[in-house]
Amino acid sequence: MTIKSFHPPLRTLMGPGPSDVSPRVLEAMSRPTLGHLDPVFVGMMDEVKALLKYAFQTENELTMPVSAPGSAGMETCFVNLVEPGEKVVICQNGVFAGRMKENVERCGGIPVMVQDDWGRAVDPQKLEDALKTNRDAKFVAFVHAETSTGALSDAKTLVEIAHRQGCLTIVDAVTSLGGSPLKVDEWKIDAIYSGTQKCLSCTPGLSPVSFSEAAVEKIRNRKSKVQSWFMDLNLVMGYWGTNAKRAYHHTAPINALYGLHEALVILQEEGLENAWKRHLKHHEALKAGLEAMDLGFFVPEDERLPQLNAISIPEGVDDAAVRSRLLSDWQLEIGAGLGQMAGKVWRIGLMGHACNERNVRLCLSALKDVLSRPKA
Amino acid sequence: MTIKSFHPPLRTLMGPGPSDVSPRVLEAMSRPTLGHLDPVFVGMMDEVKALLKYAFQTENELTMPVSAPGSAGMETCFVNLVEPGEKVVICQNGVFAGRMKENVERCGGIPVMVQDDWGRAVDPQKLEDALKTNRDAKFVAFVHAETSTGALSDAKTLVEIAHRQGCLTIVDAVTSLGGSPLKVDEWKIDAIYSGTQKCLSCTPGLSPVSFSEAAVEKIRNRKSKVQSWFMDLNLVMGYWGTNAKRAYHHTAPINALYGLHEALVILQEEGLENAWKRHLKHHEALKAGLEAMDLGFFVPEDERLPQLNAISIPEGVDDAAVRSRLLSDWQLEIGAGLGQMAGKVWRIGLMGHACNERNVRLCLSALKDVLSRPKA
Repeated sequence: MTIKSFHPPLRTLMGPGPSDVSPRVLEAMSRPTLGHLDPVFVGMMDEVKALLKYAFQTENELTMPVSAPGSAGMETCFVNLVEPGEKVVICQNGVFAGRMKENVERCGGIPVMVQDDWGRAVDPQKLEDALKTNRDAKFVAFVHAETSTGALSDAKTLVEIAHRQGCLTIVDAVTSLGGSPLKVDEWKIDAIYSGTQKCLSCTPGLSPVSFSEAAVEKIRNRKSKVQSWFMDLNLVMGYWGTNAKRAYHHTAPINALYGLHEALVILQEEGLENAWKRHLKHHEALKAGLEAMDLGFFVPEDERLPQLNAISIPEGVDDAAVRSRLLSDWQLEIGAGLGQMAGKVWRIGLMGHACNERNVRLCLSALKDVLSRPKA
Repeated sequence: MTIKSFHPPLRTLMGPGPSDVSPRVLEAMSRPTLGHLDPVFVGMMDEVKALLKYAFQTENELTMPVSAPGSAGMETCFVNLVEPGEKVVICQNGVFAGRMKENVERCGGIPVMVQDDWGRAVDPQKLEDALKTNRDAKFVAFVHAETSTGALSDAKTLVEIAHRQGCLTIVDAVTSLGGSPLKVDEWKIDAIYSGTQKCLSCTPGLSPVSFSEAAVEKIRNRKSKVQSWFMDLNLVMGYWGTNAKRAYHHTAPINALYGLHEALVILQEEGLENAWKRHLKHHEALKAGLEAMDLGFFVPEDERLPQLNAISIPEGVDDAAVRSRLLSDWQLEIGAGLGQMAGKVWRIGLMGHACNERNVRLCLSALKDVLSRPKA
């Protein structure tokens, strides 16, 4: 066995994430590693927290990146907040609410599913109705930007409904952070998690999270220990907390955090609202081009995410063959459908660094080429 | 608020990890990001598995890196294997067995602690005695290379004792992998976890793990679901498994895995046994130099880890001030004591890329300088 160094081809990543990473982020990740308790590194951690607060539009003190991918961010929210026997109303309009259900069950919580059509926004009325018959619910959980379908839900309204009944809210913002309007404090979201590999132009592997005072209170007053040691925020806070002396919990992924820091500096330079506008603008261009090719969107226009475009696969077209040829002939990755959407849609991401005019044109040209050519 | 790009100083990392990262690894991490289901990336995953099997000296099919730091690798082992009510005998000779206890408790298991002196190897006789009075134990867990004290335990013998009573074994090899002899198959270890930031010359953030057939069998036949969705190996195996079609579970930390791949290619080039020899050789040089300065080891000579040297802090010396001056004047990081060792020892790492003659000399010169100079 002799295995050589790995040199990846240069792809354009326009799937559901990872999306194209900024070269600045890649370069930052290759800077010299520091110790996880080095005062210079601790200073950088504080900057990451400040930059994440900006990205999330929050003053929440407990705002930080979990040292693992988005799925671990999701689990961090559920496992810290939900105690055995507590009821969680989950609005499902795609794959990821199904994961929320799995998380609630594994915490010993009781999930109550509120089903919406996949490809549609969550219906606030259905949530309201569900809460009427579940007055003992402690939490409402939903996905702000459903990565599996490209639907955007009205987080502000859903949180209002939840709060009227005294429920805390847990929100999946994996695909929305940095890509479409998201205002944690203004919308009064209690717990939120995201990923770095979507609209932040960063590599996968970290999960930014943020918790309101009410959520932190709930975590501090738990009757039982958090079942995960690694994700236990009572312990993690000792390392990411406000105390000048940071207690070792786990060894932070130093270089990945350099990358996130740089990604967030880039976001700050552009300005959050400008980033939101950019995603919308290139989405409009992509939409015009796709419609000119008679390719239709799966999600109704006013419920669409600009950064994640689910396109119905035309009848008679071989899903896998098209994606495979886009990859081999154009070095372009787009996403397959997930769960019940498999074979029905393609997911075209326009996220972060990947969201630019060049990529829109490349994607349209590539699709036109591959769809028009008969098989070799 | 305007936060600028972060440019870390160039330190020499001779603490308990992270240790100096190979420049080849840092460069590899900055290569273009691929999608986590890209066939080229999946090919690289297979190479990472093959290289990890070599590093662990195992043919275990379930050998892969967990997408999170070593603490998550530890939790992956416990949370998948230990079911509620099952008894786990834990040999404790330092900090990390205490974490094992936490993990067992949070899984609903019953920990039985066997205490050894900190700074000593685990005493096989004590384990044998403990198993006599705990005939219903299902697991034995211990730390092969105790990062908090620098003690090396006889994993082969401990596993033999455990197996004689039909217990599966869970072994912490965070600091031993790549640094001192570790033979998973020959020693018949059932579940093992490590970290990338010690003797593999890689950045922190991933945790290589390996499971024997018997361990996989136990996981497959669980009565209850694994309490962590993120760490559930029944699901993770769908992504890292042998099936050519990989199922999406979570988004892998692509660029971190490039780094690990490169680190393992480097290990393969050097040869595992040569790496072990190199750690021993430079440890001997460090030892000679420290003894010439009247600095003594905390661990008896035949129980010492070459890659992690716990040195007793001389009386009257200000622990924190010395470490702080090593950092500021020499850009050299050494480790503080952890847990009950705080203030009593320094931990000097000679791990992976950091384990070389230049670093030994640098460390000795720096210590001599800082210990001899009166405070400024």
